[in-house]
Amino acid sequence: MLTSYHINEVLDRAFREDIGAGDLTTIYTVPSNAAGNGRLLAREKGLLAGVNAAVAAFCYLDNSVECECLLSDGDPVEEGSLVMMVNGPFKPILSSERIAMNLLQRLSGIATQTARWAEEIKDYPARLVDTRKTTPGLRLLEKYAVRIGGGLNHRLALDGGILIKENHITAAGGIGEAVRSIRNRAPFTLRIEVEVTSLEELEEALDAGADIIMLDNMKPALMQQAVELNNGRALLEASGNITRQHLKEVASTGVDFISCGALTHSSRVLDFSFVLKR
Amino acid sequence: MLTSYHINEVLDRAFREDIGAGDLTTIYTVPSNAAGNGRLLAREKGLLAGVNAAVAAFCYLDNSVECECLLSDGDPVEEGSLVMMVNGPFKPILSSERIAMNLLQRLSGIATQTARWAEEIKDYPARLVDTRKTTPGLRLLEKYAVRIGGGLNHRLALDGGILIKENHITAAGGIGEAVRSIRNRAPFTLRIEVEVTSLEELEEALDAGADIIMLDNMKPALMQQAVELNNGRALLEASGNITRQHLKEVASTGVDFISCGALTHSSRVLDFSFVLKR
Amino acid sequence: MLTSYHINEVLDRAFREDIGAGDLTTIYTVPSNAAGNGRLLAREKGLLAGVNAAVAAFCYLDNSVECECLLSDGDPVEEGSLVMMVNGPFKPILSSERIAMNLLQRLSGIATQTARWAEEIKDYPARLVDTRKTTPGLRLLEKYAVRIGGGLNHRLALDGGILIKENHITAAGGIGEAVRSIRNRAPFTLRIEVEVTSLEELEEALDAGADIIMLDNMKPALMQQAVELNNGRALLEASGNITRQHLKEVASTGVDFISCGALTHSSRVLDFSFVLKR
Amino acid sequence: MLTSYHINEVLDRAFREDIGAGDLTTIYTVPSNAAGNGRLLAREKGLLAGVNAAVAAFCYLDNSVECECLLSDGDPVEEGSLVMMVNGPFKPILSSERIAMNLLQRLSGIATQTARWAEEIKDYPARLVDTRKTTPGLRLLEKYAVRIGGGLNHRLALDGGILIKENHITAAGGIGEAVRSIRNRAPFTLRIEVEVTSLEELEEALDAGADIIMLDNMKPALMQQAVELNNGRALLEASGNITRQHLKEVASTGVDFISCGALTHSSRVLDFSFVLKR
Amino acid sequence: MLTSYHINEVLDRAFREDIGAGDLTTIYTVPSNAAGNGRLLAREKGLLAGVNAAVAAFCYLDNSVECECLLSDGDPVEEGSLVMMVNGPFKPILSSERIAMNLLQRLSGIATQTARWAEEIKDYPARLVDTRKTTPGLRLLEKYAVRIGGGLNHRLALDGGILIKENHITAAGGIGEAVRSIRNRAPFTLRIEVEVTSLEELEEALDAGADIIMLDNMKPALMQQAVELNNGRALLEASGNITRQHLKEVASTGVDFISCGALTHSSRVLDFSFVLKR
Amino acid sequence: MLTSYHINEVLDRAFREDIGAGDLTTIYTVPSNAAGNGRLLAREKGLLAGVNAAVAAFCYLDNSVECECLLSDGDPVEEGSLVMMVNGPFKPILSSERIAMNLLQRLSGIATQTARWAEEIKDYPARLVDTRKTTPGLRLLEKYAVRIGGGLNHRLALDGGILIKENHITAAGGIGEAVRSIRNRAPFTLRIEVEVTSLEELEEALDAGADIIMLDNMKPALMQQAVELNNGRALLEASGNITRQHLKEVASTGVDFISCGALTHSSRVLDFSFVLKR
Repeated sequence: MLTSYHINEVLDRAFREDIGAGDLTTIYTVPSNAAGNGRLLAREKGLLAGVNAAVAAFCYLDNSVECECLLSDGDPVEEGSLVMMVNGPFKPILSSERIAMNLLQRLSGIATQTARWAEEIKDYPARLVDTRKTTPGLRLLEKYAVRIGGGLNHRLALDGGILIKENHITAAGGIGEAVRSIRNRAPFTLRIEVEVTSLEELEEALDAGADIIMLDNMKPALMQQAVELNNGRALLEASGNITRQHLKEVASTGVDFISCGALTHSSRVLDFSFVLKR
Repeated sequence: MLTSYHINEVLDRAFREDIGAGDLTTIYTVPSNAAGNGRLLAREKGLLAGVNAAVAAFCYLDNSVECECLLSDGDPVEEGSLVMMVNGPFKPILSSERIAMNLLQRLSGIATQTARWAEEIKDYPARLVDTRKTTPGLRLLEKYAVRIGGGLNHRLALDGGILIKENHITAAGGIGEAVRSIRNRAPFTLRIEVEVTSLEELEEALDAGADIIMLDNMKPALMQQAVELNNGRALLEASGNITRQHLKEVASTGVDFISCGALTHSSRVLDFSFVLKR
Repeated sequence: MLTSYHINEVLDRAFREDIGAGDLTTIYTVPSNAAGNGRLLAREKGLLAGVNAAVAAFCYLDNSVECECLLSDGDPVEEGSLVMMVNGPFKPILSSERIAMNLLQRLSGIATQTARWAEEIKDYPARLVDTRKTTPGLRLLEKYAVRIGGGLNHRLALDGGILIKENHITAAGGIGEAVRSIRNRAPFTLRIEVEVTSLEELEEALDAGADIIMLDNMKPALMQQAVELNNGRALLEASGNITRQHLKEVASTGVDFISCGALTHSSRVLDFSFVLKR
Repeated sequence: MLTSYHINEVLDRAFREDIGAGDLTTIYTVPSNAAGNGRLLAREKGLLAGVNAAVAAFCYLDNSVECECLLSDGDPVEEGSLVMMVNGPFKPILSSERIAMNLLQRLSGIATQTARWAEEIKDYPARLVDTRKTTPGLRLLEKYAVRIGGGLNHRLALDGGILIKENHITAAGGIGEAVRSIRNRAPFTLRIEVEVTSLEELEEALDAGADIIMLDNMKPALMQQAVELNNGRALLEASGNITRQHLKEVASTGVDFISCGALTHSSRVLDFSFVLKR
Repeated sequence: MLTSYHINEVLDRAFREDIGAGDLTTIYTVPSNAAGNGRLLAREKGLLAGVNAAVAAFCYLDNSVECECLLSDGDPVEEGSLVMMVNGPFKPILSSERIAMNLLQRLSGIATQTARWAEEIKDYPARLVDTRKTTPGLRLLEKYAVRIGGGLNHRLALDGGILIKENHITAAGGIGEAVRSIRNRAPFTLRIEVEVTSLEELEEALDAGADIIMLDNMKPALMQQAVELNNGRALLEASGNITRQHLKEVASTGVDFISCGALTHSSRVLDFSFVLKR
Repeated sequence: MLTSYHINEVLDRAFREDIGAGDLTTIYTVPSNAAGNGRLLAREKGLLAGVNAAVAAFCYLDNSVECECLLSDGDPVEEGSLVMMVNGPFKPILSSERIAMNLLQRLSGIATQTARWAEEIKDYPARLVDTRKTTPGLRLLEKYAVRIGGGLNHRLALDGGILIKENHITAAGGIGEAVRSIRNRAPFTLRIEVEVTSLEELEEALDAGADIIMLDNMKPALMQQAVELNNGRALLEASGNITRQHLKEVASTGVDFISCGALTHSSRVLDFSFVLKR
């Protein structure tokens, strides 16, 4: 879902923010006719994501810059893997380098972590999914990186799914009221998900016709009971403080989805280097 | 340096991204007249940053929402610390909650990590500083969080300082050429910093009249020699793969600044919760 | 789903477009201290929609303008019904009048037509739904008006639902391929709808696990067979050149939804007048 | 007056609105290398307008898409007329199709209706003109379509002409006061038009030196008297609830212009189809 | 024609440009609770214009800042005249001071020069008018200042008047062709002006029915002949390198308008000072 | 520092402002196929600045327009010097001409005046510098023109330098307090400048460790004493009502920089002409 359309929106902001009134160092030290190529290399093992975003960044200020990609999103890298060659005038390359690197290292970091977590549960049908705990302004890029890492996306924004949480239930006056209120008014193209914390609430949500049920902060044992009670009627999503350590245990309960905010809000970046050759 | 002016720019993007065509769940389940208050609590020990940003987010959709803050940026929190009460109609509160939380948890995470790192070197004159390895679009907020955590800011953008790196030196044809080229052309309100990797380059930079010298990826022993050679002439900044483990060792060499990209690109978020009471 | 958030986006464009360098007539003929009130009246029978948008328009240039609404969205009007009183300085009222009226007449026109069509099928379970054939830039307002008129919304945008049409099927290589390709990659919060033109395709879509099936341009007799074949497995949407004349016949086949582009692209406006009294 | 400059402004909004976080169906069902061409055909008799806008829409997401136009604005179409061939990768073509069609069908609808109305009065010197009752955000495109249909444009925005209406006269304290107040202060490049409802007001407006006089809601008999009284001094515009039925009668009175809001606010769209061939 | 609507557009740009990542000096030296008032004084004799713009600038960052205006646009000032008192917190006042002053000094400079030039020809019917030679981005403010100084506005933008210049005539194939081509196609609310350089061209323009004729770079003696030849048929505008020295001579020829680019492109600013008192 | 990035931001505004709903004269008089070339000539002696901006303007509406530049920024021109040839379709050339000329004449005017002033002090080490008294929205372009004229730039915006003025000192409670307050909190990449009006304040600023000291409105004799007292410790900037007449006298005191607001706020434009040949 990562089109140039959305990448450019991020780049517009990023360049305005980083360049401000001008990359003074580059303007005053680099001759206008200096040109050559740069090599972008991975500095550690991981999974690539964001190559297109990096390319778009390098070409953003001057479309005579050319990137030759040797690897692409979803490819594994090792320390020293050559990701791309960037050719062209040095001025625009140097002024865009940091932004290209910031995007690539962050997205690859998310993809790498997602892939490691997904690997943990590869023997179970459960899919690892993301949340809305993303960096403000980078939602689509981060969710894209999750998919590259083998995860599945939860709703992309508040208009891309119905998720009735505890606070909505309180405000609506109950699970049944909430589901009924929305069933006949919201676009019928969206599934309805309800957050529950007990088996009683689960029953209530099933009776109300929920399509998906989020088991919030349940212990694995309770989750298992929820899976049995549900008996295939709704899709089940495990949620709440999931850590890599007990991911397998959660998957083994038979839930359909396991959502983890940490995939996007706390992934370490993947390290890359960029060196120019005249 | 975090004014409402800059916070709103971030919120404009964040709300457009997260709400899209509408927070359908809230629109269709929460009655328009439902109102009450919510409590925002810390769920772990750390340092607060971003309270103003969170307040601005909660009030963004409806300025009848009111936030009563019990703690403010720079205050320490424990698990269970009450940060603020949010009063008003539930619809706008629920639709803005995630954005408020996403900002607060990220900025507090950065402040918390910065404070921990700064603590390590509190017995040395060296100051911990940030880099341009920030999240695209959140630069100013993240650099603000670094300051709350006790760090100092490196340049905010490419127009807020001169930093002549290896790539610029290559393009300019040498350290001396680069410094001279910029000295008489760039705004005289900016200091000139030069990146060096050896004592020879350090001498060259000092001769050229650099105000600040970045010691790039030097081992502590070499750094120490650099400090001695410099003898107070220029300000010295240690840089490159600094980890918390050898922070103290770096500080003990006598450099003036230690810069760490990890402060902004790889801090874990600080966890908070928000619960509404009718 | 019509929040002030989205209304203002429309107003920003509308005022920029209509005012340009200034409402010269008003600036140069109306004294700055001229004030009073205006009455907004319906000039024909219909259903109101867009009152909030009109209020926001009247107050857009000067928030000292006050609107007292006697009727609100969803209320029926007759010729002469008083919708609202607009009080305040004449300059901003006159400069915003046309925009307020343009929005109100268009949205009320859509709501009125939708209500008339919906009335035709009120004895059937089928719900009248809209399409993406809306006016560029006014999508959310027009879909809101459809709901006020008693219709239900199809997806609000391309990210709010999966709708696999003939062209996608061709490109994917078949219905089964298309559904499978998307099932494991798109956000699981969205239902999957498939467009079919025959019973064979219907079977194929059901086998592939479609949640909703669009019966495209089928004659009522064929639709009825489709309803029987489906036997409650998927939701069924009748689509394609539906006119008011044969709406009832379509509804009687037992489909769940009937979608009509004409609701938004070809509704006649509802007429209103606005007269100022000093 | 329809330049790519203004078309792109409309497309920016339209794509942001329609695509949101992504055209998920297309992204996940259409292979990136799928390509071919599509045929855009008229489905009913009418007059083309908006071909350039449709072309710009098809190329908006990917400028490797190519449109070969067989017909252009102002050309008549019949059911089955081939308007253009669209060649290129399927992904961007499918994601832009709806927007291209929405613009083309609306503008062609306006041009078609305008041409039919203009035909009615082709034996009279009176010109059919539009009003400011246009769709918010589409003013320039709709006024362009009116011209394609043979109509003439009234002012494009509030800064493109002086039109003193009843409400301004009331506020200014009389027709003479209003005209004099504006004559020496507004840009002298604009004509001054005054709305009148009686022969007395007409005299007053002529005495004040109005360049154009709008005869508001006058019956044809009264209009005729107005034409005689005016005796060529000012240009005369008939306005107010003009319908196709009595258009000829109005034209026969000898007025110079006949303005009709319905041209833009209530035209039915002209129907087109678009089918892709691999 | 200077509404807060247009002022804010200018301020948005101005603040973004001047503040960048923050007014660091003010942020780090001025205590948040420092408050008081500042006095804005004229430092030389002239005519005020832009007071509202200055007020809007001072309040832009914080609407708790209050301005008490003792003089307003069009008022004469002497050295030492107190224009306004600005009360409130020092931080936003100091950060907006430069922008407020930059606008006030420029607009007052234009108004002052216009008034001086207009004074020269006050005994003639000719009106002094501006041109499109304005500062990019400040057109409306500068044209407003011309009016405050007693000048009249030529068209505000390319859509606010028809002005057929030498280059258009060349392209169209003659004056007659150009006028006829536009008469039946452009909005009839605009006057048609034609640029001529000789009496022959003047005759041609009059025959074609031009409403206004621009006498381009004619010597006064020729202008006088043009006025006689015209004999009241069209409005006449003298244009081209008009200087204050021969303004009276031009006016005495009997032309209706005299246009001067220098009013907006080369006026000296009027000097003001601003001093804060705690 | 003038990149196409920043030029386009200015052009976006300029075109939106000048074209509005369309360049009606050109649209309706110039045939679409009319093409040829235009010659841009200087009409007086001066220094060129803004050639790139003019080229970008001419190509803004249609990138098939081509500009062949015979001279570039920094080149001297005489009356009649041919600056560039502009080739292509007449419509976009004519619609962009005024904007291209407005930018070129203003920037060349600033460069010309700066060069004349700089010439006055060419025998002294002092550099002529600009201020923040620039036209709102054109800051970067105007500061660029100052550099072309041989001047040096003071900070580009409030985030590009620390300048503690009288008002800050008052608010902070003294020079020492102000400098200390900022030294440990602002980005260390910026120099700290302090404004002083007496030798006592100068001492205070030197003691506090100011990097640059602005001698505000000092008489030359006092300035000289300041230079002696400073004795090379800080950089010294003379400021306040500097006129061309006593520039030399100021330079002879031995200050490092002389700043003049008049360079940007009161330069007369340099005159150019543009004539099209079919």
